[in-house]
Amino acid sequence: MPKYEHLARAIRDVPDFPKQGILFKDITTLIIKPELFREIIDIFTGQYRDKGVEKVVAIEARGYLIASALAYRLGAGIVPIRKPGKLPAETVSETYELEYGTDSIEIHRDGLSKGDRVLLVDDLLATGGTAAAACKLIRGRQARILGVAFLVELDFLEGRKRLEEVDIFSIVHF
Amino acid sequence: MPKYEHLARAIRDVPDFPKQGILFKDITTLIIKPELFREIIDIFTGQYRDKGVEKVVAIEARGYLIASALAYRLGAGIVPIRKPGKLPAETVSETYELEYGTDSIEIHRDGLSKGDRVLLVDDLLATGGTAAAACKLIRGRQARILGVAFLVELDFLEGRKRLEEVDIFSIVHF
Repeated sequence: MPKYEHLARAIRDVPDFPKQGILFKDITTLIIKPELFREIIDIFTGQYRDKGVEKVVAIEARGYLIASALAYRLGAGIVPIRKPGKLPAETVSETYELEYGTDSIEIHRDGLSKGDRVLLVDDLLATGGTAAAACKLIRGRQARILGVAFLVELDFLEGRKRLEEVDIFSIVHF
Repeated sequence: MPKYEHLARAIRDVPDFPKQGILFKDITTLIIKPELFREIIDIFTGQYRDKGVEKVVAIEARGYLIASALAYRLGAGIVPIRKPGKLPAETVSETYELEYGTDSIEIHRDGLSKGDRVLLVDDLLATGGTAAAACKLIRGRQARILGVAFLVELDFLEGRKRLEEVDIFSIVHF
């Protein structure tokens, strides 16, 4: 039985979301359970407690649901990455490729400083496009990526290959 | 000097965002500071620790940045409210009026059950339209709203008037 099988079982499969043929992994059925939500935050905390994380960079929007609790536990600040036009002050942005077309993400220019010790957090690693763009944003601010944390990793999509040179930790693998 | 003056000072004013004439209160400059982020979560925790909160309902997206840490501290689960089309499973929705036009928010139908003890969390109370709609969603699931928590309340917009019958707690008032 795989590690954290009980956490994998708490994640709901939603067929054909957001479009036909996609089997969506819905984490809301896990984080709604207090004991499971606590467990995932504690697992992440154990993973990063001794790394000296100063800032947790969180990817909108589901990533925030994990990143905030983890930042609290690690004694770190939290810095949001958002879709274009959502952050109010001066931003830097990064564009990445989707299956059809492109998308962009942004971070506040003053959200990271040179040498900051950063943990990047999102709910799910699929093809890795968003996370790779987020890593570029962080490196562009000359901050140091101590790790990239996901609750779920879809191994068969091999998103990990797009995130070379960073330490990746995912709790649940499908 | 008002209570929590140091927290108020950590919130950045951004003129003309998201549109001309709006002075946007940017909380990212507060939550980026580990000690201030910790302080707001601890203030909220003190406020709700003895209330028996079972589920923290969080409003997308900035609300998540606070709600996740608070849910962890309260030993509660977390249930997201999102914009239409974002939640993968069956939802219930509520439409509310904006200055021009309307907007909607959704929650998973199985996100709340009858009698659940709920704390609603968002970053900022302005006119109260979104929060009032969120309260309707929660009540529609026959759950019990123990409180509504905001980091910031814009007193001059009188959003509180649209949230009668619920207990509102905001840390910073402008």
